[in-house]
Amino acid sequence: MKKILILGAGMSASTMIKYLLDHSVQYDWKITVADVSQETALRKVNNHPNGRAIAFNINDEEQKNSEIQQSDTVISLLPAFMHPIVAKSCLEFGKNMVTASYVSEEMKALDVDVRKKNLIFLNEIGVDPGIDHMSAMNVIDRLRGEDAKITSFKSFTGGLVAPQYDNNPWNYKFTWNPRNVVVAGQGTAKYIEEGKYKYIPYHQLFRRTENFKVLNYGEFDGYANRDSLKYRGIYGLENIPTLLRGTLRRKGYCNAWNIFVQLGLTDDTYIIENSDKLTYGDFIEMFLPASNLSVEENLCQYLKLDSNSDEMYRLRWLGIFENQKIGLNNATPAQILQKLLEERWKLGEQDKDMIVMQHIFEYEKENRKHKLTSSMVVQGQDSLHTAMSITVGVPVAIGTKFILNGVIKEKGVVIPIWKTIYDPVMKELENFGIQFIEEEI
Amino acid sequence: MKKILILGAGMSASTMIKYLLDHSVQYDWKITVADVSQETALRKVNNHPNGRAIAFNINDEEQKNSEIQQSDTVISLLPAFMHPIVAKSCLEFGKNMVTASYVSEEMKALDVDVRKKNLIFLNEIGVDPGIDHMSAMNVIDRLRGEDAKITSFKSFTGGLVAPQYDNNPWNYKFTWNPRNVVVAGQGTAKYIEEGKYKYIPYHQLFRRTENFKVLNYGEFDGYANRDSLKYRGIYGLENIPTLLRGTLRRKGYCNAWNIFVQLGLTDDTYIIENSDKLTYGDFIEMFLPASNLSVEENLCQYLKLDSNSDEMYRLRWLGIFENQKIGLNNATPAQILQKLLEERWKLGEQDKDMIVMQHIFEYEKENRKHKLTSSMVVQGQDSLHTAMSITVGVPVAIGTKFILNGVIKEKGVVIPIWKTIYDPVMKELENFGIQFIEEEI
Repeated sequence: MKKILILGAGMSASTMIKYLLDHSVQYDWKITVADVSQETALRKVNNHPNGRAIAFNINDEEQKNSEIQQSDTVISLLPAFMHPIVAKSCLEFGKNMVTASYVSEEMKALDVDVRKKNLIFLNEIGVDPGIDHMSAMNVIDRLRGEDAKITSFKSFTGGLVAPQYDNNPWNYKFTWNPRNVVVAGQGTAKYIEEGKYKYIPYHQLFRRTENFKVLNYGEFDGYANRDSLKYRGIYGLENIPTLLRGTLRRKGYCNAWNIFVQLGLTDDTYIIENSDKLTYGDFIEMFLPASNLSVEENLCQYLKLDSNSDEMYRLRWLGIFENQKIGLNNATPAQILQKLLEERWKLGEQDKDMIVMQHIFEYEKENRKHKLTSSMVVQGQDSLHTAMSITVGVPVAIGTKFILNGVIKEKGVVIPIWKTIYDPVMKELENFGIQFIEEEI
Repeated sequence: MKKILILGAGMSASTMIKYLLDHSVQYDWKITVADVSQETALRKVNNHPNGRAIAFNINDEEQKNSEIQQSDTVISLLPAFMHPIVAKSCLEFGKNMVTASYVSEEMKALDVDVRKKNLIFLNEIGVDPGIDHMSAMNVIDRLRGEDAKITSFKSFTGGLVAPQYDNNPWNYKFTWNPRNVVVAGQGTAKYIEEGKYKYIPYHQLFRRTENFKVLNYGEFDGYANRDSLKYRGIYGLENIPTLLRGTLRRKGYCNAWNIFVQLGLTDDTYIIENSDKLTYGDFIEMFLPASNLSVEENLCQYLKLDSNSDEMYRLRWLGIFENQKIGLNNATPAQILQKLLEERWKLGEQDKDMIVMQHIFEYEKENRKHKLTSSMVVQGQDSLHTAMSITVGVPVAIGTKFILNGVIKEKGVVIPIWKTIYDPVMKELENFGIQFIEEEI
C-alpha cells in the first residue's frame, strides 16, 4: 500500500483528486486530502473508502511533519510561496513531491540534496506550466532527431469560455482569477525575433498582437508574456532566432482591452478617493481631458476611435459609459474595472470553460522551410471538472502515479522536459481528451 | 555675533553662501560651511574673514552635535533624507533650521516639539518648492482680499537653457540632474479640472500638454506633475474647480519626448544584457516589431509619424538611428538614453541656464471673468551662479537672515505660504532680479 498526501483541495484539485481516488483500488493507494477547510476536503473525498479528509494548517509544524512522514509522495497545490516549506519537510523525511507551480529559486537550490536522498521533486506539471513544456519538447525532440533546424517557436495558451457558451461581444468570461486578468501583462514583455531582442512596454502590449487560427475553432489574438527569453535555456533552444510565449484571447479582445490600458484603467497602484460616489461614466471621464462632449464622444476623440468600431461596441456593451454607481469605495482603477467585468463576464452555472494551446514552429529540413502547428483544445465537463481543473490536475495525478510505480526514474528537482517523463504522461493524457493535433503548413 | 551653520556646499549652495558672506560684516555673522569635501567648502568660503570651511560627516554624531550646538541657525542643503537627522539635533539644542526641501512626514511630525521650544524650521524656501509658494500665495491672498473667486490655478516651472545659448532643435540642455529629466513624470499625474479629478497615466503624459506664452520669451509646453491635488490644502483652495501644477519645456519638446515614452526608452526597471555591444540604432530596433524597413522608417510606421515631422528631425539630430556604439554595459533603457542625451544636451562652459515660472489664474470678480498670469524668468550669471543656484539659494539666505533678525516671527515646522514670510522675502528677491510680472488678459 502507498500513501499519497494531497495538500490543498481548491478549484484546480478536483479532477486530480478524482483521478487518484478512481485509481486507488487498482494500485492500492491510501489518499489523504488536506485543506485549510476540512469541509472542502470532505467534499472532494466524497466518502471514498480509500480517501481521508483532514483540516490542515501549514503552520502547525507537528501536523505537517507527522502527515508528511506517514506518506510516500506529497502533492502540493498550496499557494506557490508555501512549496518550499513543504519541500523542506519532504527532504527531511525522504518523500517525493509533485507540484504544478514554477520552480522558485528556493526550490531549485534543493536540487543537490534531493538527488543525494534519491528523491524526485517534480514541478511544473500542470497545464501552463506543464502541458506546454511536455507538448513543446515532444515536437522539439522529434525535429532534432530528424536533423531539422528550428528557426522560430511561438507558443500561446489561454483560458476561455467554451464555444457553445461564448455569447458576449468580448468572447470572454472569467474562468480563473479575475484580478490576474485585469493586471495581466504589466511590466515589460521580452522576447527574441529574427535574432534580435525585443522589448514591449505594457502600454504597447495589446496592440502588438499576432493573429492565428486554432484547428476549427476560428481566429485568436496572442499577446506576449513577460519573459520569453529564459525558455531558450529551458528548451535547449539557445540559438533559436525567434522565440515568443504568449497568452491568447478571441480575435478582437486585445484591441478593445487596449482602450482600458491606454486610458490607465488597469492601474492597481493608487486609490481613487470616494469612488463609491461615482458612476462608471464618471470613472471613465477621470481619464479624459475636460470636454463639452459626452464621455463616449470624448473618448473617441481622445483615442481617435470610430464610434461604430468593434472596440466601442464592446465598451458600450459593458455599460461603462452609464450612470450605474460603482459601489466600491477607495478602490484602485483596476479594482473598479474588475468589479464591472465580474458582473458582465461572469461564468454562468451551466457555462463550460475551455483551454486552448497552440505551438507554432518554423524549421528548415533538407533545405526546405516548414511550418508546423501543434494545437490542443480541452473543454470543461461541468462546474467541478472544468478544463482548467482537468488540464492542471490530470498531469499532476499521472506524474504522481508514474513516480509511485517507478515509470518516472529521474531524481532531483525536475520539470517535465525529458522524454522519459513527457512520453508516458502525454500518452495517458490522451485518454482524457488532452491531445495535440499537428498541422503542417 | 550670530553663528550660521551651512550643511552641504554643492552646486545649489554657491549663491546662498555668497549672499550670507556678503552680508556677514553688516550683520556680524560668523559662517561655517560644512561639506563632505572640505575642498568644496573651502572653495565656496573663498578665504572670507567671516567664513570657516570644514569637512563634515553627518554620521559623526559628536561632530554633528558640536557644530549644531555652537550655531544659532542651521541651513541644510544635504540630500533631503538627511534633514530629519539634522532636525532632531536642532531640536535637542534649540536651534532654528532652514531647508529648500519638501516637508517630509518625519519633519512634519516635529511641529509640536519645535513650537514648544519656540523655534522655527523653515522648509520649502528654494525655487520649486519655495518661490512657487510665495509668488502664488502673493496673488491668491490679494485676490481673496479683493473678494475675487479663483476658479482656476495652473502653475508651471522649468529649468532650461537661456535663449542666447539655446541652439539645438530640442531647445533643451541639461542644467540639472539628467537622470531626473529622463525618468520625469513616471507614475500617474493627478489634478482637478472643472471640478473633476483627472488622472493621466505616464504613457499619455507628454501628449496631454498645455501650450502657453511667457512674457516675451515665446511659447512653452507644460505637462502635469505627479500630485497637484494636495496643493488645494496647502494654498487654502479647497473648493477650486481647476488646479494643476506642471513642468514646462520649450514648444515641441514634449511631442518629441513622447516618442521615447511610447517606445519604452525611459524604463529604468530592467537591464539590457551586453548593451555595450549595441549601437543606438540596434537599441531603438529592440522596441520595434521586426521589419525589413530601416529602423527610422520602421519607427515612423509603428508610431504613425511623418518622416519630415519636427519630432523625427529632433530624433535624427540626436544620432539615435546611427551606428555609434552605446559603450555602456548591462544598462537600463533609461541609462542608455541618458548617456546619449548627456553627450548631445551638454551645457557648454559658456552656456547659461534659465528658470521660468508662470502662474495662470482665472477668477471671477464683480460678475466678470478675469485671467491673470504672473511670470518670472531668471537667467544664470555664470557657471557658479546659475539661475538654479540663484533661485534656490537666495530665498534660503534671505529667509535665514529674517529669522536671525526677527523679521520672521513664525514658530514650528513652516513653509513660506504666510504673508508675514513671503512679503519681506519677495521684496528683497527683486534686488536679485527675481521678480514676477503680472499680465491681465
